[in-house]
Amino acid sequence: MRLPADASGVYPIAPTPFHDDGRIDDDSVDRLVDFYLACGANGITVLGQLGEAAKLEHAESLDVASRIIRRAGSLPVIVGVSSPGFAAMRALTREVMERGAAGVMIAPPNTLRTDEQIVGYYRQAVEAIGADVPFVLQDYPLTFSVQMTPAVIRRIHTELPSCSMLKHEDWPGLEKISTLKAWVREGAMRPLPILVGNNGLFLDYEMERGADGANTGYAFPDMLVDVVRMSRAGEREAAHDLFDAHLPLMRYEQQPGVGLSVRKYVLHRRGLLASAALRVPATPMSAAARAEVEHLLTRLARHDARARLPQVE
Amino acid sequence: MRLPADASGVYPIAPTPFHDDGRIDDDSVDRLVDFYLACGANGITVLGQLGEAAKLEHAESLDVASRIIRRAGSLPVIVGVSSPGFAAMRALTREVMERGAAGVMIAPPNTLRTDEQIVGYYRQAVEAIGADVPFVLQDYPLTFSVQMTPAVIRRIHTELPSCSMLKHEDWPGLEKISTLKAWVREGAMRPLPILVGNNGLFLDYEMERGADGANTGYAFPDMLVDVVRMSRAGEREAAHDLFDAHLPLMRYEQQPGVGLSVRKYVLHRRGLLASAALRVPATPMSAAARAEVEHLLTRLARHDARARLPQVE
Amino acid sequence: MRLPADASGVYPIAPTPFHDDGRIDDDSVDRLVDFYLACGANGITVLGQLGEAAKLEHAESLDVASRIIRRAGSLPVIVGVSSPGFAAMRALTREVMERGAAGVMIAPPNTLRTDEQIVGYYRQAVEAIGADVPFVLQDYPLTFSVQMTPAVIRRIHTELPSCSMLKHEDWPGLEKISTLKAWVREGAMRPLPILVGNNGLFLDYEMERGADGANTGYAFPDMLVDVVRMSRAGEREAAHDLFDAHLPLMRYEQQPGVGLSVRKYVLHRRGLLASAALRVPATPMSAAARAEVEHLLTRLARHDARARLPQVE
Amino acid sequence: MRLPADASGVYPIAPTPFHDDGRIDDDSVDRLVDFYLACGANGITVLGQLGEAAKLEHAESLDVASRIIRRAGSLPVIVGVSSPGFAAMRALTREVMERGAAGVMIAPPNTLRTDEQIVGYYRQAVEAIGADVPFVLQDYPLTFSVQMTPAVIRRIHTELPSCSMLKHEDWPGLEKISTLKAWVREGAMRPLPILVGNNGLFLDYEMERGADGANTGYAFPDMLVDVVRMSRAGEREAAHDLFDAHLPLMRYEQQPGVGLSVRKYVLHRRGLLASAALRVPATPMSAAARAEVEHLLTRLARHDARARLPQVE
Repeated sequence: MRLPADASGVYPIAPTPFHDDGRIDDDSVDRLVDFYLACGANGITVLGQLGEAAKLEHAESLDVASRIIRRAGSLPVIVGVSSPGFAAMRALTREVMERGAAGVMIAPPNTLRTDEQIVGYYRQAVEAIGADVPFVLQDYPLTFSVQMTPAVIRRIHTELPSCSMLKHEDWPGLEKISTLKAWVREGAMRPLPILVGNNGLFLDYEMERGADGANTGYAFPDMLVDVVRMSRAGEREAAHDLFDAHLPLMRYEQQPGVGLSVRKYVLHRRGLLASAALRVPATPMSAAARAEVEHLLTRLARHDARARLPQVE
Repeated sequence: MRLPADASGVYPIAPTPFHDDGRIDDDSVDRLVDFYLACGANGITVLGQLGEAAKLEHAESLDVASRIIRRAGSLPVIVGVSSPGFAAMRALTREVMERGAAGVMIAPPNTLRTDEQIVGYYRQAVEAIGADVPFVLQDYPLTFSVQMTPAVIRRIHTELPSCSMLKHEDWPGLEKISTLKAWVREGAMRPLPILVGNNGLFLDYEMERGADGANTGYAFPDMLVDVVRMSRAGEREAAHDLFDAHLPLMRYEQQPGVGLSVRKYVLHRRGLLASAALRVPATPMSAAARAEVEHLLTRLARHDARARLPQVE
Repeated sequence: MRLPADASGVYPIAPTPFHDDGRIDDDSVDRLVDFYLACGANGITVLGQLGEAAKLEHAESLDVASRIIRRAGSLPVIVGVSSPGFAAMRALTREVMERGAAGVMIAPPNTLRTDEQIVGYYRQAVEAIGADVPFVLQDYPLTFSVQMTPAVIRRIHTELPSCSMLKHEDWPGLEKISTLKAWVREGAMRPLPILVGNNGLFLDYEMERGADGANTGYAFPDMLVDVVRMSRAGEREAAHDLFDAHLPLMRYEQQPGVGLSVRKYVLHRRGLLASAALRVPATPMSAAARAEVEHLLTRLARHDARARLPQVE
Repeated sequence: MRLPADASGVYPIAPTPFHDDGRIDDDSVDRLVDFYLACGANGITVLGQLGEAAKLEHAESLDVASRIIRRAGSLPVIVGVSSPGFAAMRALTREVMERGAAGVMIAPPNTLRTDEQIVGYYRQAVEAIGADVPFVLQDYPLTFSVQMTPAVIRRIHTELPSCSMLKHEDWPGLEKISTLKAWVREGAMRPLPILVGNNGLFLDYEMERGADGANTGYAFPDMLVDVVRMSRAGEREAAHDLFDAHLPLMRYEQQPGVGLSVRKYVLHRRGLLASAALRVPATPMSAAARAEVEHLLTRLARHDARARLPQVE
């Protein structure tokens, strides 16, 4: 199944589960996918930055992606294929598309500066992977240092028909959503699904600006599903109430570096990952950080029962 | 009065108030200072990035700084003197210290990379401004792209006795506070007051890690004062409750670019600034953004009466 | 006199001469200007990066600029006014234009990324300094990290009629000159004088691509004048012969950091500066570096008598 | 054979030869290696940035490296294994070492800033590839934006005994060589072979500062061999004469982006590559650029017969 032209809802970014000894934990992979299915996710993104893709051997990457694709059944699975070279990008794309991926996600290399360079890069990427492979445009200036104006996104989307979704992680980014969605309304560009990232830190108002959903890895994807649903259903204050209850933890989890450790820790505490282990190199959580996350979970549990987790002995 | 060696509490970063036509609004300057005094601030920082310092003529900068210093009475006033050249830094420092400033704040130029370069820069800055002028070390990697390890901060602090405070805005930064405070406890460095920035986005746990207060411009400095006080008094959950209620707005105000417009808008809505005007170049708020801030204030008012503001017609 | 719309030839970048004790050396300022006049320069640029502008007090900057303007007589003098803030840029521009400057030079702040941001910045700069002040667009990606495509330069030049010259320091930059000059030939943009920088390291072929001259600070501006003249006169191989003889020294002088020390040392050795002193902070030449420059001069003297300098004792 | 602890001389960086249709050109690979052997090279580096490594499929990379290793006989071959992830770095390292590579070359990812981060990165890289694999530390701030002080290089070299060579491409870099070599002389660090890059642009004085040779891809590696030999033999002026004759072309070839096209063009003109083709994405040479290179070769031929090439029809 290919990524639909009108994708929407929540596409969690899946972490890659490891055993404490560093081997990939297949059972946790399965459990995670089952959980995404159960909580109403609309798709899954794998092998992104947060999937520790760079720490996997090539064969491991293929194994994880294949396992998730099979388990996800009818849910579209997007595979991160960003790479410093087009040869590796093409090879990985070919392999995962053969195994049933719905599309790929491509982040820009952080050397790009001018509008021309950015558009040219995606043109070359599409030449490399093939114009028939749907791709997600990842716009994440904070990490990649590449700044794409709405006009550049429109140029890429117009010139390259396989551009099928925007993973929007600009910061600030509210006006960018408004601008792009206004262009679509006015017929100045063809429709472009916008799913937001940044750990969902602005999901509340991003939905109101017209975003189509979320594409991020927050450890409570079930909350993201709820907020997206309520926001679309017009239950505005209820959406904000739930969102605000999670914001202290979302903010904590969004910290660069240590954030992924926090995310895996919470997923482990929720029983979804057997271990919170990361492969090296990793930024581990200190004892103080673990205590802070426990405190955040305790406070969150007052508002959201899903955070009511059995105590760690 | 010089910046004390044991500074603590809340040092709001003061914006520079303008009339709608761009002239400096002296009445609002006074009102702002009176408000800081009334709400329990322990000092004031002026002419920082958020004070639109780069948009002021030299004489205007001096006027604003002088007016605030006089009005602030016994409250120490720190003046931002960051500059691409040491000549301008020295000149402004000399002038504001003569007018009664308590110290200056110096951010690193964003070309610095290595530990040597960073330490060397501050060594030269102190040669330029004089070793008798207390200075605040501004550590804000997100904006300045300069990354200072705890070890570099210790080197600067150890080598330069006039280093009197750390304005801590690293992100993530919790472990940095823990590391520095542990070194002080263990006698591995002399005491260094740490006041946190980043619009206070992690103030809750930063205080628990040992921070001495806040040095940021959030539009509710009175809330910062409360959180710092409660945190020190051991009223942990009360501190978090108040903090969490403000977090949705704090997050919104912390957006790069538009954040200062949001801040001035809220200060204007609170009756502290006669106008929310910025000087050009500025990132203005859209109608949607204004509506979002009103919504945030309405929601906040359910928890904090200070956000209960008369409706804008 | 205003910067002519068809500027060409050599506009040396003047260093700021200091006495060994750091005071500005007025006699050397005069000697330098007289030398530029005598060797056939077509204009002078002052207070650029290489003029140590950031190390001058405001009054000193004005003094140096005024002295050079007066001494230069009918030669147009361009003053660097780049600044982190438009207020300071406007103030300095107003003052030097009143004193007879021909125009100003503006470099982009190194935070600019997108085409929109770059064009927007120059639009705001012109609003600040006034549309009647001719300005030189400085395109120096290596130092400023800002990349301007030919299309962006054309947009700035088209939208802002006071854009009067391109100081071209892109690297590589030959194709950029060809593109811009082709656009002018085809009527796709109005004429834009292009003077090249980068210490003249590609002046030989840049002239053949259509550049109008040089705007750089190499310590033998008389050689630059010769190469530009011969290149225009069609004396191709003679131009290259002279250029190639200087290339080893040009390359040495173009090193970031220490380059300015080398330049001042050579100007001192040529008798133009009484002292090679820089103000702090500076990257001093080691004894090895001085010996290398002497060696380079000795070798150069075999081809160009102007490098035959009395031995230093 | 492992990279010797006292490596010296010239290690050319080999380009990857392609047919016009993009396939790897094995005959040209062989011809190139034979040429390196014949002209007195002391080793070969393959799959560097200039080897278009990122454009090769994994199997192709292995094929090229293996072919060169076999053909090179007793000459040590270093393989570039820089990668965004340690998994891929480890995998490639293992494979090429099994095939007889002498060591690997590792460039730092351009996100590293602080001294700690740089040292930590190499510590992790050695953990990944194994402490028994000699590695070349690549110090190329211009491309990688990572600045390593001499002290950081010493820390890496001291802590990691498998650090076996410095590929020095800092700019300016003369003082760095002097500092490191002085430390070795004084016993403050163990010996570290320094081979210089930057297309050899400062090879003349770098040799005099104590560099042990060159590790760069200039299209006349035979000239590099001569200059290194003459410099060591004390034939100073002869070394400079030869070097200076090549400098105009070296400078031209060192341009970022188009430089590799120039290099392959010259190697093609010398009969070493059957085609000057690059794989996409590439910066092609314009007709003007080709004419300029021909002009440079013609002028060079007056001094060095090796540049006397049959005319292209």
